[in-house]
Amino acid sequence: MGTQFLDIKDPLIAKDLISSNFYKYYACKWEEIPLEDSYGRVVFEDIYSVIDFPPFNRALKDGFAIKSEDSFSASEENPKSVKIIDSLEAGDHSDKTVELGTCVEISTGAPLPEGADAVIMVEYTQKDQDNVELYDSVTPTQDVAVSGSDVKKDTLLLKKGVVLTADKIGVLAAQGFHTVKVYKKPTCAVISTGNELTDLKDKELKPSKIYDVNSTMIKNAIVSCGAIGVNDGIVRDDYDNLKSNILNSLKNHDILICSGGTSAGVGDVLKHVLDEIGEVKLHGIAVQPGKPTIFGIVNNKIVIGLPGNPVSAIIIFYVFFAPLLMELVGLKEERLKTVKAKLTKRIHSPIGREQYQLISFNDGKAEPIFKDSGAIFSLARADGYVNVGKNVEIVDEGEIVEVRLFN
Amino acid sequence: MGTQFLDIKDPLIAKDLISSNFYKYYACKWEEIPLEDSYGRVVFEDIYSVIDFPPFNRALKDGFAIKSEDSFSASEENPKSVKIIDSLEAGDHSDKTVELGTCVEISTGAPLPEGADAVIMVEYTQKDQDNVELYDSVTPTQDVAVSGSDVKKDTLLLKKGVVLTADKIGVLAAQGFHTVKVYKKPTCAVISTGNELTDLKDKELKPSKIYDVNSTMIKNAIVSCGAIGVNDGIVRDDYDNLKSNILNSLKNHDILICSGGTSAGVGDVLKHVLDEIGEVKLHGIAVQPGKPTIFGIVNNKIVIGLPGNPVSAIIIFYVFFAPLLMELVGLKEERLKTVKAKLTKRIHSPIGREQYQLISFNDGKAEPIFKDSGAIFSLARADGYVNVGKNVEIVDEGEIVEVRLFN
Repeated sequence: MGTQFLDIKDPLIAKDLISSNFYKYYACKWEEIPLEDSYGRVVFEDIYSVIDFPPFNRALKDGFAIKSEDSFSASEENPKSVKIIDSLEAGDHSDKTVELGTCVEISTGAPLPEGADAVIMVEYTQKDQDNVELYDSVTPTQDVAVSGSDVKKDTLLLKKGVVLTADKIGVLAAQGFHTVKVYKKPTCAVISTGNELTDLKDKELKPSKIYDVNSTMIKNAIVSCGAIGVNDGIVRDDYDNLKSNILNSLKNHDILICSGGTSAGVGDVLKHVLDEIGEVKLHGIAVQPGKPTIFGIVNNKIVIGLPGNPVSAIIIFYVFFAPLLMELVGLKEERLKTVKAKLTKRIHSPIGREQYQLISFNDGKAEPIFKDSGAIFSLARADGYVNVGKNVEIVDEGEIVEVRLFN
Repeated sequence: MGTQFLDIKDPLIAKDLISSNFYKYYACKWEEIPLEDSYGRVVFEDIYSVIDFPPFNRALKDGFAIKSEDSFSASEENPKSVKIIDSLEAGDHSDKTVELGTCVEISTGAPLPEGADAVIMVEYTQKDQDNVELYDSVTPTQDVAVSGSDVKKDTLLLKKGVVLTADKIGVLAAQGFHTVKVYKKPTCAVISTGNELTDLKDKELKPSKIYDVNSTMIKNAIVSCGAIGVNDGIVRDDYDNLKSNILNSLKNHDILICSGGTSAGVGDVLKHVLDEIGEVKLHGIAVQPGKPTIFGIVNNKIVIGLPGNPVSAIIIFYVFFAPLLMELVGLKEERLKTVKAKLTKRIHSPIGREQYQLISFNDGKAEPIFKDSGAIFSLARADGYVNVGKNVEIVDEGEIVEVRLFN
């Protein structure tokens, strides 16, 4: 298991290969969840109205339900008087029928009684015991929301793919939906490999050891895509150990993301394990950082091998995998935020490799953070990264670049 | 309890009044949560590094740890040979000291042995049993991340107010933080009032009734602000009932949002209840829709009364309360997304009232949705709203408006 040479793929070809395998090995699923808990979830299929709304002729104002004809030509100077035969609050129902010369006192939201065709607002009336004087004329359906006027039964309410914000949830509530069918979140397990890694729960950092960043960081990056991230912890960089852990994680989860163990150096075993228990579809992309990225299939499930280096790992995750993961949840890649900004310093980039340069974004300016990719503290200052194309050698100070922000 | 007149406040004055009372009656709290579950949460106080990183001189490449002096003037034509005295993988430690003429075989991530000051990459060497030929010269610290070179102990890592995305979580993981102190989410209960309201759990919609939209919708709007929304259900529009429910909700939650029961009409009781058990700070804002909005304090807690009409309720929530709620969670108002767009139709607006017009946003165009605010289906098409100032009578077709999107 000494040094090996990778079959380095062009990033565009790598993206296509990963994308087609994502669709081949994960079919989007749905689940029915309480509408109440559906914020941010994505509608899985077109939703149609099931009732007319409003379900009855509904008073829009406090006042009197009348036959509008009774008010015609009424004015301050020439009021018309009608007899009050009932009083109705929202939620109540009247058995009385409004005939010419009669009315029902009515509250906003109450159903118009039989016979009435309009509401005259309380402000334009004067009540006097059993009668009310009308000081204005109203037209038929005035201040009435007619049954079905807002939406008829069987109307398309929300299309598949709509993200449920509070307003859309309100639309479904008005139709009486108690649950909603949404994209199920795939579960993605994360494993960090490396004998030097120490769990965050361990208080003491022994000599030669560092804390495990990737399992916690990539789990949260998965969450940022709307999927379920599960931290399956640290695995020693040992063939049998890694193999059994991978097989175990795949039993319980849809996708597995490993990090570390991907270079072609001493002690890097992921590639060999995947060769035995599944198929490596991709090992090596012409990018910097992140060249030794692995993508494979084991037991018909997707297995991703990110670089062990945290900066490389998170960039590769967002460039190659986040957009696809979001699609599995029903979200669109456009939700990965970008901003345009003026570069404050020249970036040099190697020809033949797509380069991802960390950027600190401030006041519309993009400041490159030049540190080796082992420098995790760069991420404290970084807001995102720019993608420098493989045929670009220099992006000059002052050029406008597109910064992809960490979500 | 007949018709009453409200003390209508200018929207700017209302905002100031609400804002100052928010700060007076809710002090931001913190909690310590697992770093692993901290995505999207907000850092409550400046966080400083607790260790140097890397914690030791760390090999950045696979190769040989040498005294760089041994490689000086080495080349393909004139290789230098040094003796291999040990082999080191990441996580391991060597007791050997590298002297001139010796080296230690080393893997990426392993600690440099005593005496070595550089790593020569395996690509520039040729191993021959116990010796290795060096084909290139390297400089001191080449391919070594020197202890503390990324970040020194006691360096500011993340400022108070930083939103924890995966990359920032990675920075804290590298320092061994297992937990993180974040803004605690306030809990906001929601009550819908109205005798006409039917719970979504009830299968059948009886005559004169409509489904309760607001408790579910506003709960999710609260969630969109990063707070905890709790649906405390429907309360009949009855004085004693409402009073006991309000007092009960306030026992368990930081803030209470009621909807309905705010107009000055028959059967609207919220104002009277709040007058008895607390203090009404505001009743009526010069806006459309949403004029009868109530804001008060009961038992030193914030109570909000939104209009019963769902379209009015959600707009008033986002205009007057969402930005403040987000601040309590540590988030900035800028997270409420806005887009600029060209208006497709003229908007008429009443002088003296700030008006909120629902907008459908497509291809950079803002199309007003003209429906009365009882038309909940408008929200199915709406993406947000524009705010038409109180002194503006017309916003013309073709003008550029700022659309505030529903989050």
